[in-house]
Amino acid sequence: MPLNVAVMGATGAVGQVMLEILAERNFPVGELRLLASPRSEGKTIDFKGEPHTVRALGEDSFAGIDLVLASAGGSLSKRFNPHAVEAGAVVVDNTSAFRMDPEVPLVVPEINAADLEDHKGIIANPNCSTIIMDVVVWPLYQLKRVERIVVSTYQAVSGAGARAMEELEQQTRNLLAGKAVEPAELPHQIAFNLFSHDSSIGPEGYCEEEMKMIAETRKLFHDREIKISATTVRVPVFRAHSEAINLEFSEPVDVDAAREALAAAPGVRVIDDRERNYFPMPIEASNHDDVLVGRVRKDISRPDGRGLDLWVSGDQLRKGAALNAVQIAEEMVQRGLLPAS
Amino acid sequence: MPLNVAVMGATGAVGQVMLEILAERNFPVGELRLLASPRSEGKTIDFKGEPHTVRALGEDSFAGIDLVLASAGGSLSKRFNPHAVEAGAVVVDNTSAFRMDPEVPLVVPEINAADLEDHKGIIANPNCSTIIMDVVVWPLYQLKRVERIVVSTYQAVSGAGARAMEELEQQTRNLLAGKAVEPAELPHQIAFNLFSHDSSIGPEGYCEEEMKMIAETRKLFHDREIKISATTVRVPVFRAHSEAINLEFSEPVDVDAAREALAAAPGVRVIDDRERNYFPMPIEASNHDDVLVGRVRKDISRPDGRGLDLWVSGDQLRKGAALNAVQIAEEMVQRGLLPAS
Repeated sequence: MPLNVAVMGATGAVGQVMLEILAERNFPVGELRLLASPRSEGKTIDFKGEPHTVRALGEDSFAGIDLVLASAGGSLSKRFNPHAVEAGAVVVDNTSAFRMDPEVPLVVPEINAADLEDHKGIIANPNCSTIIMDVVVWPLYQLKRVERIVVSTYQAVSGAGARAMEELEQQTRNLLAGKAVEPAELPHQIAFNLFSHDSSIGPEGYCEEEMKMIAETRKLFHDREIKISATTVRVPVFRAHSEAINLEFSEPVDVDAAREALAAAPGVRVIDDRERNYFPMPIEASNHDDVLVGRVRKDISRPDGRGLDLWVSGDQLRKGAALNAVQIAEEMVQRGLLPAS
Repeated sequence: MPLNVAVMGATGAVGQVMLEILAERNFPVGELRLLASPRSEGKTIDFKGEPHTVRALGEDSFAGIDLVLASAGGSLSKRFNPHAVEAGAVVVDNTSAFRMDPEVPLVVPEINAADLEDHKGIIANPNCSTIIMDVVVWPLYQLKRVERIVVSTYQAVSGAGARAMEELEQQTRNLLAGKAVEPAELPHQIAFNLFSHDSSIGPEGYCEEEMKMIAETRKLFHDREIKISATTVRVPVFRAHSEAINLEFSEPVDVDAAREALAAAPGVRVIDDRERNYFPMPIEASNHDDVLVGRVRKDISRPDGRGLDLWVSGDQLRKGAALNAVQIAEEMVQRGLLPAS
């Protein structure tokens, strides 16, 4: 049975990839309703070769809709998701608005699909950096309990939206032409530069992006005790995040067992060729579903054998956002949690 | 008294900056002898407005020379440094060839200048990633002993030489023009991409660059026990390395005391404005002597208070290479270890 699907933020970077993924996975779409800001009203976007007209998002946008894929920003989700739920739709929300709400499941299907059973209309999609880390850490956590994570990110500009992607390109062109650069979408020059993630810094000195990685991982893993320190950094890469991940386990782990667990894990692909010095790279993760992992090695700084180091790259727009949202919807269909109206 | 100075590898990225720094610091240069491969023989390079002709490096290149600043690659240093020492010169060697030789001091003047006293003609300049990390970690180590470091690097292409810098520019131009990219100097596409440092991977799964950071830090700090895990990554930035550094101390550290120690440390500048979200960036470290440090915060993953997180950026060609070499020479002059012939 096809579902009537609304995409909130259809013209954004994530919204566009939502549509790509719905099409390529043959998600059972009945009516497709494209919602965006009034600025985009009347614009036409193709889906499976058919033009669809973008409508302005409003409180009455959701009549007859079964599934909303929301990616228009946290404040719009806060305002409009309740209306969607009231109209009988299930919302898979890609913003941070509801992630830490105890009434809202936060889900990566490879990790905690069962949490979907308790939904009350809204399901939250985690932050991109969290998903890309946790889809790789989870199979290792199954092997032995991970007690502490120290992670440094190398985050693509796609995480800041379509205009940030254009800004990286335009700034780069300007610099190569000897012209000045004026940051607009991002707070600092991003071309041939990098900077600490620009979300606001809290009292502990960690930025929001870092605190999300901590809080969301605890919720996904159902582990309030896991310790995490993160340093999140924006780099001049278009659309895949990379992360250097240092793990501390409750007991010694075997590297080969870890690599086998990763090789067997859904959504993960091991690229770990020490001979050829060939490991995950953002250009190879881009436009692919799997999160790539390599540099799997025993942490040489822990003689007790309780440490592992990893290096991952994953597409920020796919697994980091749109793909995970569609996978949540697919999982809900399979579980009978998302019936057609 | 002026010194007769030879620059080995005078046409390279580091060699060029050596000359800049000798000039701007008014190093007492008598004769200046520019040495490079036969390919560059006869080329002219200006120093303080005077043209100097590049000579081909040979065993007889060092007669009458007091100081050699060597940056022509490890195999050439291995072959020619002994001839320079035999001719009576002191060699400050920027390659990895002699760094771990127990007869050779490895020096960052801010850390272990006294080690210069034991020199036998060759002094080694540490790896760029090591210097940029350690000049910041050392003042904290003075505060409380650092027992373990987990570091992730964001390394500029300058570390791979002048041609790698040109390759970043050319690849970027090609991609923006819709043309294909063929890596030559670097093993993978670097424009809008990043990759695990391409030095060879040893039996423990760490690459040479990472093992250098471990071994050299131990030698600089005179601490064989300090534990370090590093993940080294090449990023599309021209000439400053950044590093996310997680420190574990022997006992709790106070963040304000740490920030004060950094503010007072030579060669270090604190840029740590949480309000404005303004922290070290490679474009601001480039062409400057100080290593920038910010994001100084208590490691939230260590409730015992024994952890600190830092974020640094430092010019790879200056403090990471040429500046440190010239500072070593200056320190030797001051200590009477480098007399004019």
